[in-house]
Amino acid sequence: MTTVKAQQLEDFIARALQAVGLPADDASSVAGLMTRADLIGADGHGVFRLPQYIRRIRNRGINVRPKIRVVSDRAAMALVDGDNGMGHLVMSFAARTAIEKAKTAGVAWVGVRASNHAGPASLYASMPLAHDMIGLYLAVGNANHLPPWGGIDMLLSTNPLAVAIPTDREPPLVLDMAATVAAYGKVKTKAQRGETMPEGWMMDRQGKPLTDPKRADDGFLLPIGGYKGYGLALVFGLLAGTLNGAAMARETVDFNKDEVTPTNTGQAIMAIDASAFGPVDEFKRKVDDVARQMRGSAKLPGVERIWLPGEQSHGRRAEREAKGIPLPAPLRVQLDGLASELRISPLT
Amino acid sequence: MTTVKAQQLEDFIARALQAVGLPADDASSVAGLMTRADLIGADGHGVFRLPQYIRRIRNRGINVRPKIRVVSDRAAMALVDGDNGMGHLVMSFAARTAIEKAKTAGVAWVGVRASNHAGPASLYASMPLAHDMIGLYLAVGNANHLPPWGGIDMLLSTNPLAVAIPTDREPPLVLDMAATVAAYGKVKTKAQRGETMPEGWMMDRQGKPLTDPKRADDGFLLPIGGYKGYGLALVFGLLAGTLNGAAMARETVDFNKDEVTPTNTGQAIMAIDASAFGPVDEFKRKVDDVARQMRGSAKLPGVERIWLPGEQSHGRRAEREAKGIPLPAPLRVQLDGLASELRISPLT
Repeated sequence: MTTVKAQQLEDFIARALQAVGLPADDASSVAGLMTRADLIGADGHGVFRLPQYIRRIRNRGINVRPKIRVVSDRAAMALVDGDNGMGHLVMSFAARTAIEKAKTAGVAWVGVRASNHAGPASLYASMPLAHDMIGLYLAVGNANHLPPWGGIDMLLSTNPLAVAIPTDREPPLVLDMAATVAAYGKVKTKAQRGETMPEGWMMDRQGKPLTDPKRADDGFLLPIGGYKGYGLALVFGLLAGTLNGAAMARETVDFNKDEVTPTNTGQAIMAIDASAFGPVDEFKRKVDDVARQMRGSAKLPGVERIWLPGEQSHGRRAEREAKGIPLPAPLRVQLDGLASELRISPLT
Repeated sequence: MTTVKAQQLEDFIARALQAVGLPADDASSVAGLMTRADLIGADGHGVFRLPQYIRRIRNRGINVRPKIRVVSDRAAMALVDGDNGMGHLVMSFAARTAIEKAKTAGVAWVGVRASNHAGPASLYASMPLAHDMIGLYLAVGNANHLPPWGGIDMLLSTNPLAVAIPTDREPPLVLDMAATVAAYGKVKTKAQRGETMPEGWMMDRQGKPLTDPKRADDGFLLPIGGYKGYGLALVFGLLAGTLNGAAMARETVDFNKDEVTPTNTGQAIMAIDASAFGPVDEFKRKVDDVARQMRGSAKLPGVERIWLPGEQSHGRRAEREAKGIPLPAPLRVQLDGLASELRISPLT
């Protein structure tokens, strides 16, 4: 494990993306969001994904000069075509659009198609927070690792949901979860680190527990609450994918195996302007109060502390901003290889 | 177990509600929705709740002549004050408001406060379907049976989510789920039937499995996916409760124990007009296609059939419309008692 400063990492990512053709501004936006993923501890969604993004760009599987545009809209919604650009850029555009519309309409929903993998869901759900808005984000995952409940065909992805709620003095409440017990990114991280998975994350096609992350292709992720998690993955996929004309179910392109075909990734973001419902400060103080009620609960034997959604990421970000971001040695080697391949200065 | 025709049940419920002061139209609306709950098999949410509703009304815990009104609104949202009326009436009003606004704004979100228990979430999420809209419903439950993850204080309710998506020839996709492994209504039904619960539904304060539904007060419901279900219950509660100025966390009135204090129940409904995103027929055909992909998946050993969310309820409704609604004998006795108490004709 080595450690790198956030700014160094961000600059490196931006250099790499520029080297494969992204305009400087876009490279810098994507690098900022990818670094934020590493800062909050979403290790399967930050620089870990850079080599894959770069390969896809070099295979022309991602458009580095997309015309991201609204293809239809009404007072409280828009449908955005991402023109196969980097997901981070498409979703940033969508989030800005949702926030603008929510300022007048009170609530706005923006769906996206022809997008790509955009990193952790919480990044986008959190964007409305600065405007005292609640954010909600849904996405269709970029590889199917989940069968319908009772089945074994990989027809669904982990299809995450994130919800961010503004607070007064407490860290914002940010729930970011896959509809599966574990996200596939966590499986990839385990594989990269040579670790085994706990039972309950995955199952093989005979219904037996699967704990070796390198055997991930032999099985599937388990949904939370059994048929409930299956239902969530299905419904989120229809809302973030099918409704927008994006890929879903069999149409999903496995971006781990196919680095050429456009993924036609679907995502959706909603912004809810808290001020439309009443005085914002009062709302934020009430959210603080609810958060403190949770934290203050009596605890089960052996439990040290009760956490709020997003609180651990919030703490990790402060820690990593101060002490740097830990990178596993094999990833560091991979990034050094990428630097020489792209003829850019390596990460220091 | 006895069986009753849906129309007989609906008429009986309407008579009972009129007898305690609801206007005829309102009594008939509530009776229709409660009967629909029994038709779809939401047995903990239909006529099962009638004795409790009646007691609360007679204790003036529910307002039988409410002025349900919009207290603030914008193009794509409204906040509704239910004036402590029956939840079914308040939510029907909210759903109509959301549908009307979504017709122009594309999407609309209506929050509700000073409402009451309204029966199964799917009833309201399904209301936009007739307008080729997607429906989404959230509610704060009326009793806290869930602690924060790692805690033992009952600060959260099961806080359900329902999502309904229109289809072409398939039954509509209707997901209706609590953030807990089991809904509390199911625990009540098990108790009434004298059955035990499977392990994994509830846990006691020492962390041991609780399987006797009559001991429900000694423990709490378990959230789906551990901390994820806790996060869902918390976030749904903030969106359906706190945002609307409705009860949440410690403010929640346990409607099983307190039949006098207004519950200030919070709920929220969203309508998404599918036609704002593209041709509706095409969307509905694609949803059908996704549903058929799920059903057509190869199956795990021992699995007979793969179900879509809402498909079993859909089938049960058809069956119960034809053959009648089964009522457990103890409930039937209770309803006969209610009839003589209210001096109305009994259920036949």
